[in-house]
Amino acid sequence: MRGIGVGLIGTGYMGKCHALAWNAVAATFGDVARPRLVMLAETSQALATARAAILGFDRGTDDWRRLVADPEVDIVSIAAPNPFHRDMAVTALEAGKHVWCEKPMATSLADAEAMRDAARASGRVAVLGYNYIQNPAIRLIGKLIAEGRLGRLQHLRVEMDEDFMADPATPFGFRDQSLSGIGALDDFGVHALSLLSVLAPPVERVVCDMSRPIPQREGDDGMRAVETHDSATVLLRFAGGATGQLALNRAAWGRKGRIALQIFGNAGSVTYDQERLNEVQYFDSRDPADRQGFRTLLAGPAHPPFANFVPAPGHSLGFNDLKVIEAREVLNAVAGKPARLIDFEAGLDIETCVAAMARSHANGVWVDIADRRRA
Amino acid sequence: MRGIGVGLIGTGYMGKCHALAWNAVAATFGDVARPRLVMLAETSQALATARAAILGFDRGTDDWRRLVADPEVDIVSIAAPNPFHRDMAVTALEAGKHVWCEKPMATSLADAEAMRDAARASGRVAVLGYNYIQNPAIRLIGKLIAEGRLGRLQHLRVEMDEDFMADPATPFGFRDQSLSGIGALDDFGVHALSLLSVLAPPVERVVCDMSRPIPQREGDDGMRAVETHDSATVLLRFAGGATGQLALNRAAWGRKGRIALQIFGNAGSVTYDQERLNEVQYFDSRDPADRQGFRTLLAGPAHPPFANFVPAPGHSLGFNDLKVIEAREVLNAVAGKPARLIDFEAGLDIETCVAAMARSHANGVWVDIADRRRA
Amino acid sequence: MRGIGVGLIGTGYMGKCHALAWNAVAATFGDVARPRLVMLAETSQALATARAAILGFDRGTDDWRRLVADPEVDIVSIAAPNPFHRDMAVTALEAGKHVWCEKPMATSLADAEAMRDAARASGRVAVLGYNYIQNPAIRLIGKLIAEGRLGRLQHLRVEMDEDFMADPATPFGFRDQSLSGIGALDDFGVHALSLLSVLAPPVERVVCDMSRPIPQREGDDGMRAVETHDSATVLLRFAGGATGQLALNRAAWGRKGRIALQIFGNAGSVTYDQERLNEVQYFDSRDPADRQGFRTLLAGPAHPPFANFVPAPGHSLGFNDLKVIEAREVLNAVAGKPARLIDFEAGLDIETCVAAMARSHANGVWVDIADRRRA
Amino acid sequence: MRGIGVGLIGTGYMGKCHALAWNAVAATFGDVARPRLVMLAETSQALATARAAILGFDRGTDDWRRLVADPEVDIVSIAAPNPFHRDMAVTALEAGKHVWCEKPMATSLADAEAMRDAARASGRVAVLGYNYIQNPAIRLIGKLIAEGRLGRLQHLRVEMDEDFMADPATPFGFRDQSLSGIGALDDFGVHALSLLSVLAPPVERVVCDMSRPIPQREGDDGMRAVETHDSATVLLRFAGGATGQLALNRAAWGRKGRIALQIFGNAGSVTYDQERLNEVQYFDSRDPADRQGFRTLLAGPAHPPFANFVPAPGHSLGFNDLKVIEAREVLNAVAGKPARLIDFEAGLDIETCVAAMARSHANGVWVDIADRRRA
Repeated sequence: MRGIGVGLIGTGYMGKCHALAWNAVAATFGDVARPRLVMLAETSQALATARAAILGFDRGTDDWRRLVADPEVDIVSIAAPNPFHRDMAVTALEAGKHVWCEKPMATSLADAEAMRDAARASGRVAVLGYNYIQNPAIRLIGKLIAEGRLGRLQHLRVEMDEDFMADPATPFGFRDQSLSGIGALDDFGVHALSLLSVLAPPVERVVCDMSRPIPQREGDDGMRAVETHDSATVLLRFAGGATGQLALNRAAWGRKGRIALQIFGNAGSVTYDQERLNEVQYFDSRDPADRQGFRTLLAGPAHPPFANFVPAPGHSLGFNDLKVIEAREVLNAVAGKPARLIDFEAGLDIETCVAAMARSHANGVWVDIADRRRA
Repeated sequence: MRGIGVGLIGTGYMGKCHALAWNAVAATFGDVARPRLVMLAETSQALATARAAILGFDRGTDDWRRLVADPEVDIVSIAAPNPFHRDMAVTALEAGKHVWCEKPMATSLADAEAMRDAARASGRVAVLGYNYIQNPAIRLIGKLIAEGRLGRLQHLRVEMDEDFMADPATPFGFRDQSLSGIGALDDFGVHALSLLSVLAPPVERVVCDMSRPIPQREGDDGMRAVETHDSATVLLRFAGGATGQLALNRAAWGRKGRIALQIFGNAGSVTYDQERLNEVQYFDSRDPADRQGFRTLLAGPAHPPFANFVPAPGHSLGFNDLKVIEAREVLNAVAGKPARLIDFEAGLDIETCVAAMARSHANGVWVDIADRRRA
Repeated sequence: MRGIGVGLIGTGYMGKCHALAWNAVAATFGDVARPRLVMLAETSQALATARAAILGFDRGTDDWRRLVADPEVDIVSIAAPNPFHRDMAVTALEAGKHVWCEKPMATSLADAEAMRDAARASGRVAVLGYNYIQNPAIRLIGKLIAEGRLGRLQHLRVEMDEDFMADPATPFGFRDQSLSGIGALDDFGVHALSLLSVLAPPVERVVCDMSRPIPQREGDDGMRAVETHDSATVLLRFAGGATGQLALNRAAWGRKGRIALQIFGNAGSVTYDQERLNEVQYFDSRDPADRQGFRTLLAGPAHPPFANFVPAPGHSLGFNDLKVIEAREVLNAVAGKPARLIDFEAGLDIETCVAAMARSHANGVWVDIADRRRA
Repeated sequence: MRGIGVGLIGTGYMGKCHALAWNAVAATFGDVARPRLVMLAETSQALATARAAILGFDRGTDDWRRLVADPEVDIVSIAAPNPFHRDMAVTALEAGKHVWCEKPMATSLADAEAMRDAARASGRVAVLGYNYIQNPAIRLIGKLIAEGRLGRLQHLRVEMDEDFMADPATPFGFRDQSLSGIGALDDFGVHALSLLSVLAPPVERVVCDMSRPIPQREGDDGMRAVETHDSATVLLRFAGGATGQLALNRAAWGRKGRIALQIFGNAGSVTYDQERLNEVQYFDSRDPADRQGFRTLLAGPAHPPFANFVPAPGHSLGFNDLKVIEAREVLNAVAGKPARLIDFEAGLDIETCVAAMARSHANGVWVDIADRRRA
């Protein structure tokens, strides 16, 4: 059995995460051929060669176009800086490769649309690296909803908070410049929206407010006005009438990796906080009155595909494991099997939602999110 | 030393709570004269007499106007249904009595204004029963803010959730009728606003959405449309530029007494959930990097006036204890001392805020909250 | 309806707590006559008179024997220092009074036996102030066990930790002297044993170890060896074969009021930590595999007698409320009704258990606890 | 740079975990050569060949002795059933290989001693798979202790609980037979002891009790008496005078992967529960009185080697990641660098401790643990 040929562009934070996943996916799941790690691309040949040796790839290159064109490469992992996503993805798809591109999809709605169009034209697998939807805990929440255990969803709250922009003493940097994007909304809020996309009805209307908790930062020539928005708050209306709230803050002291969900239905509730990645809180209104309470569900073999990692419950999965699950889903998709992934169509929905929120903030009004697909 | 004369109108949920507080306040604090529990009013003479015996009051009456007029009565505790608040408070103030009235202040902005006017005209103590601001844990949060430990406040989130309206099988009742008020917003959201009023800068702008999680309920003659809104979501802008969110839901399965705060400043953070009434989570950004984390602060003697109840830390206070602290503050106010209370002026601010939120929902727009006092 | 006549000896920490309970019990429960607060005793007449005024008692005295002899007094609350318990309780019982005595029962096993004998001879109510067993959360645990929801109990762990003796800089004091007792074991460990006495089978065998975390403290004339044991650890064997552990530490930095229970049966489990006085964690092994987890049960009206304090769930009770429940149980006992209390018989069992543990430590061996009652 | 040659014996639960670690270690740490995965051994050639393909090994064999003898193999990962550990480890060491053997070390003290002797004689790296000591959270605890932040350690409690033996309906199986070992003590209690071995002073004295929560189970021919002990409780005395408790229960309903530590010193405290693998609770007694509390420290880049996995704090590590860290330590040891590992000497200490506990239970007495090394 000959494994799929993998090319990897970029070996930073998420590129390394892709590499680890490609190294682990077959050993973890046990029923797919080990991928052949054909080539990786980095910014210099020396770096590429060194990283290839360490990450288990056969070759390295400083030219991603060569990687994309290589006949041994069947699928391209794109983990280069966001502004390159469009070019790389479109080129790869046009070359007949499958594409697994890191989030966010692109740095403009136009780019995202071009990527979606290329995906449609190619007929190839074109998916985004929204790893959090792969968490067995998140899948469990989806299952509880699908089985009707929460009843009809009525109200959802999503929070995503970290503190890497919280320190006023941090000097003015790339993330403070408008060329880096909108701010919390597109930088990491798309993760929150990816969870909504698999757990909630479509978002139909939004009103959004954004702010600059640290209005200015020390630049090379004195204080400089921050251009992006580290904080965003949003009211949401979902198809079917449920209401919701979204809060994003990358200047929230003490929050390190919080993605908190609160989902209320007319029969039960679920809450979750990703800082405790293996726990779900579940309330069943049908429990007897004196024994009702949120249950702390610890991820385990009862929650697929946990058992592929550890056979014992309560023996936690970690952040990198989610990427291994995602890699398996990508392999499924390539093999024509059902896969739990956010493809370029669904990814464009997320980008559309982000754009609507930004417009709401700019204009101070509620904004309808047109149903792109029906249009 | 002759204690102050107390009259109590209403002995239900909060009326009983007032009675317990009046019985306990001197014994708890040890440095004020025991109030004389002169008279209580109930809906019948028999009930009034029986309750007086049980609650330690000298006499009972079925006529609250007699109670208000009684020369032995110095202060009137009003715990009658909300629609009566205005008449009782105004009459008592005009009779020269101090007034301690349960929240919400009134059932219309006009009534609240009339009460405020009567308070101004009387020169008497006229305060509202916002007991949660008395919690030593909340006072601690206020102290941390006042001492600058959080730095400049940048972002605040407030949630208040219970589930007493969550069951779709609960028949149509008083709380479902528009004559009971707006819904979550005025029924219990005012508690959340009371906390903001002591912890945050004034709210300047809001955009609000409300919904009916249970659209209809079983009435006497078949299903009936619910008229009030069990859920409300709000974006907040505070004076000085901080942003915030407010979420209210009285149909949130599994939430029993949740009032959750998240307050982020540029030097630290605080969170709190009233279901754990004696705990504050505090993050200090100045802690060394490897030892940074939210500290679970358990209320104790270091957090006044905890020690007046129990000399040992970690030996919890309860809901009823907060009213005893409030009674002490009322006695302070009557004695002309500084007191931590929400008077009719501040109470009207809360009602104004509620009205603005309702208007925002009705019109689908951001609404400015005019500064009533400067106007 | 004429209420019972109460005399109170001592108005310190627990004496004040008794006074608050006597003031609140009728108003809280609503179906018993208000006790008449006849007299209190303190160490001087001036103090007694002042405290009587504040605490709502008619009179004060500096002679507890006069209080005990007073014909108006039906029941005596004993909250004087432990060495006085025996004399006061025996004298009161011999005078035909009911006795509600604070824990620990006495400072020697002989004294406790004398008290038990006096109780037997008198036919009066003679009970101890083990307030924690009154907590609705603890009663809920008892109910879950009684209903068989945990199945057969197999293993129990109890921890009681505070940090009032943790600071090495605290000078040598009364609690460091052997005349104050054994240390953690009798000072506060009896609370832990009181919980076992209502939740677990009798303890049959123990092996105990004690230590002095702070071996010496600053005295008036230099460093002085600590004589008591701030820490104790015990292995327990219960009737029927269940095993257990007890850990006591009054020098445990960061613990403020921890009494932690872990109770494992062959069908489920319960855990509890008194620093969160209103919460029980309950695991039901019959929940489906993918939805199993500890449920956080928040005390509420489903857990009597919570609703007598607050009608709303999740609106916490506090430490002082437990004493009010206890006062109600005392009134029940006096009225000849069933009452959940630790009487002098059961209290002697606790003291016997403590003595066995101390003996085990001294001799370094397992010690059987003879069944006193069958003997 | 030519990587070390690895042979793996056994590909079950922990064997797969070793394989994943060997695949990931170089990519994760980035500064060591990728190991060459030379050969694995399984119970049949077919299985071995299939697993080799999946796990990334060059070859498979059904004869572990061939693997051990292979000149390409530098280090042998032993993850075969416990009774084989001795033979495999001794043979490998005698063949001049380094050995990384899964816990528990052996099934008898004599076997463990033989392994230790072989290790001494060989001069090779001979270490055990105690992965939990590699957790950055556990390393952080060790660092806090080493830096003196807890002061002098006074009291330690360790609990290890799971529920895989909790169901009385589970039929009689291997773990119920005495040939499988003692029970909780040697089956999983050694993990708890491994943590003590890196965090606490040596254990000097123990008294132990063991029990059979499920006394009999359904066998092939009716009910059969369980021979092992699913539960163990122990009192501990450490060198220097600190006291402690150990509780082990593999029939503890609701516990899935709990390894709970409570470590009290005279300046601070630490607690930890492995079901939340990335969290440490730390109490610093020097914090100001009103801001004292356990800090929830979330593992992150400030806690090496977390950043080698994820550069962002609060983005959890998982169970399998700990083995990757361990693999790195093994490579360090092989390279003659300092390594944080439990070698066969320290492993024998753990086995000696287990044996002493079993003897204490059998004889009902305190047992001294002779200092093997000084002897």
